Amino acid sequence: MRRPGGRSARVRAAVLAATVDVLLEGGLDALSIGDIARRAGVHESSVYRRWGTRFNLALEAVLDRTRTEVPVPDTGALRTDLAALLQGTAAFVRTPLGELLLRLALRADMAEYEGARERFWDHRFAAGSAVLTRAEERGELRPGLDHRLVFEALMGPLHMRLLLTREPLDETFLDGVVELVLAGIAPHD
Amino acid sequence: MRRPGGRSARVRAAVLAATVDVLLEGGLDALSIGDIARRAGVHESSVYRRWGTRFNLALEAVLDRTRTEVPVPDTGALRTDLAALLQGTAAFVRTPLGELLLRLALRADMAEYEGARERFWDHRFAAGSAVLTRAEERGELRPGLDHRLVFEALMGPLHMRLLLTREPLDETFLDGVVELVLAGIAPHD
Repeated sequence: MRRPGGRSARVRAAVLAATVDVLLEGGLDALSIGDIARRAGVHESSVYRRWGTRFNLALEAVLDRTRTEVPVPDTGALRTDLAALLQGTAAFVRTPLGELLLRLALRADMAEYEGARERFWDHRFAAGSAVLTRAEERGELRPGLDHRLVFEALMGPLHMRLLLTREPLDETFLDGVVELVLAGIAPHD
Repeated sequence: MRRPGGRSARVRAAVLAATVDVLLEGGLDALSIGDIARRAGVHESSVYRRWGTRFNLALEAVLDRTRTEVPVPDTGALRTDLAALLQGTAAFVRTPLGELLLRLALRADMAEYEGARERFWDHRFAAGSAVLTRAEERGELRPGLDHRLVFEALMGPLHMRLLLTREPLDETFLDGVVELVLAGIAPHD
C-alpha cells in the first residue's frame, strides 16, 4: 500500500541521490539541474519548482544523506558512547561527503537554507540526546543538564580544530575532550 | 636608539594599517596592492615581495590587528575570567573586524597562510593559558590539565554556533558553557 504523496517522495529520493552522486564526482561546479533531472528521470521544471537553485538542491541532498551516515552509539556506558559519537564524527568529516557538507554549510548564509540547516542539526542533537538520556537512567550524569549544550561541548572543539585552528583530530585530542566533558557532567558525589 | 630593521618594521606597520582600513571600508574585493602601497607610502614592489598576494596581505593584517583587540582578563577568580574571555570573544566576532577575520580564516586553506594562522592561535591560547595559570596558583582547577584543550572546550561551542548551527551567542548559552567547563576542570574534593 502506498501513502498519498508516494510518487512525490520517490521523485525526491531519486533527485537527491543523483545530486549526491554528481557532487561527489565533480563538486558543486559540476552540478547542473538539467543533468540531475535527466539522471533522476524527471522534468527539469519539477526540480526548479521544488528546489529553486542548484545550491539549495545540493545542500538538501547532502544533509539528507548525512543524516543516515553517523549512527547513534549504544555501548552501555556513557564514556564509550561519547567516544563513539565523537570518533564517528571525526571520521565522517574526513570522508568526501563530510568535506562537501562542511563546504556547503559554510557557504550557506541565505535565509532559504535555514530550514535545511535546522533539520540537520536537530537530527544530530537528537543523536546526542539519546545517548545522554540513557546515561541519565543509569545515573551516569547529573539530571537536568541541557543536552544540546552538552552535545555542543562535545562537538565544538572538533569543529573549531577542523575549521579554524586546523590542528589534528587525533586520538589524544578526542580522548581529552571526552574526559573533560565527562568530568563536567558527572553526578556530584 | 633604533634597532636594525626599524624601517622594515615601520613599513610593515604602515602597510598592515592601510590594509585593515581598506578591508573594513570595502571588504576583500576593494583591496588592491597598488592602492595599499600608495596609502602606506611605499613601493608596490615592496608589498608584492613581502606578501605576494593581496589575500595573504589581508590575512596577516587582520590577524595582526586582532591580536590586540581581545584583552586578557584578570578579575581575581576563574569563573569571571572565563566568562570575560568568552564574552569578549562573542563581542569581537560580531564586530566588522571579527566578521572579516572569520571570512578570511575560512577561505585560507593554502599552505602559505599556515604560519599566520598558527601565530594567531598561539596568541589566543596564550591568553587562555595566562588565565588558567593564575587559577592554578589559587587552587581553582586541577593541576596538570592541558591548557590548550581547556581553551578549546571554552571556545569550541561558540565557534560551532557561529559557523555551523548559527544559533545565538546569548547570555544563557555563554554562562552554560562557562559552568560546564568549570565543572570539568574543578579540583577533585
